[in-house]
Amino acid sequence: MRYSEQIIEGRNAVTEALRAGKSIDKIYILDGASEHGLDAIKRELKKHPETKVIYTRKEKLDLMSKGGKHQGVIAMAAAYEYATVEDMLRAAEEKGEPPFLIMLDGIEDPHNLGAIIRTANLSGAHGVIIRQDRAVGLTATVAKASAGAINYTPVAKVTNISRTMEALKKQGMWFVCADMDGQLMYDLDLKGPMGLVIGNEGHGVSELVRKNCDMIASIPMKGDIDSLNASVACGILAYEIVRQRMKS
Amino acid sequence: MRYSEQIIEGRNAVTEALRAGKSIDKIYILDGASEHGLDAIKRELKKHPETKVIYTRKEKLDLMSKGGKHQGVIAMAAAYEYATVEDMLRAAEEKGEPPFLIMLDGIEDPHNLGAIIRTANLSGAHGVIIRQDRAVGLTATVAKASAGAINYTPVAKVTNISRTMEALKKQGMWFVCADMDGQLMYDLDLKGPMGLVIGNEGHGVSELVRKNCDMIASIPMKGDIDSLNASVACGILAYEIVRQRMKS
Repeated sequence: MRYSEQIIEGRNAVTEALRAGKSIDKIYILDGASEHGLDAIKRELKKHPETKVIYTRKEKLDLMSKGGKHQGVIAMAAAYEYATVEDMLRAAEEKGEPPFLIMLDGIEDPHNLGAIIRTANLSGAHGVIIRQDRAVGLTATVAKASAGAINYTPVAKVTNISRTMEALKKQGMWFVCADMDGQLMYDLDLKGPMGLVIGNEGHGVSELVRKNCDMIASIPMKGDIDSLNASVACGILAYEIVRQRMKS
Repeated sequence: MRYSEQIIEGRNAVTEALRAGKSIDKIYILDGASEHGLDAIKRELKKHPETKVIYTRKEKLDLMSKGGKHQGVIAMAAAYEYATVEDMLRAAEEKGEPPFLIMLDGIEDPHNLGAIIRTANLSGAHGVIIRQDRAVGLTATVAKASAGAINYTPVAKVTNISRTMEALKKQGMWFVCADMDGQLMYDLDLKGPMGLVIGNEGHGVSELVRKNCDMIASIPMKGDIDSLNASVACGILAYEIVRQRMKS
């Protein structure tokens, strides 16, 4: 995973980047700049408490600027490079291991995505596949929550989870998702080439993705509530795969 | 776990509650109130992005007020009742199960504490014990992250984790914590009366608490980084206890 910092300059460009939900770490604003166009930025900033605002001098902005047209506003955005699913399969092959991928069907919370990338790294998964729509991407918050794992474990973004599953099934992979009415996870055989599917925090795995799964695993539930936190459920299932693979 | 909403009124009382780190869900401020004393509240509010600020009319504040001295400011704080460790042991006895407690040695992130209470509920733990100092308590964010589990699973707050462990060991309990140089968790016997100890997100289990543990468990680590997210590690260990108990 390569990380780079992207510079966005100019009032409109920064406003648009904020509106598009881009992960902006810091915004430098000219101290004493005219308010024209800044109100839109300030309005957007209220929705982004994670963005740090720094008031600075014109000389500093001129130095940072690449195009020379900053209009008193420069934003620093986090940019992570995505991997491809092929990269992950190749990594598994090179290690002589059956592929083990974690597939996320709409994780929205950056803390969960970060924790899952961390789990993927330590459980020996070869990569994490995320969905393009209605899901969090590789933002600065995710990077931080991953505790560095984002630098080692590849993350691929796909437009259609079901179609990716179908393609991978043709290459011999099996898919397992978690649900209450599944088979007890200890009784399933999870040792082969495996895609572990984790659903959205609120409404779980979507119907089509569920239909594409070869196995439905259930984690024993003894309590009063409905479900575990998504990243905790992912950890428990990933380590059931680890346990079964260690035995074989 | 009983939940109640506590009303705090008056400019000084609200400022002090914010400074003390009390979990305030909402603050009602009189629309057009004089700024006198409000600047301190607004300064504190910058550190509490989770608190919702609502500007309202005097009539509404008068209706909400209990003491009649709101000075244009009323805060709604979340208040959860803590249980005792004895409550938990009694619950285990009533169910005819060996006690299973989760003991947190300084969890600071409310999302982690919420996720852990959720795991405790579903893995059949009889309660969660937290530390008074340098640890998050039962705030509104924790309640939300627990997805309702806070209403079922008792949480006790103790001033000294080590002393509580010593007392519980005299009553026959065993303690296990996680660390890299421990024994593989699958090889330990975790079926008896068990306290699962989870350390702080940054620096793990403190030395004294570690010394008080009867067993050190290691979760297999195949990756490049140092550790799992604390709530994920707790989930994996709690479910190893569940797995071993199901077999017996």
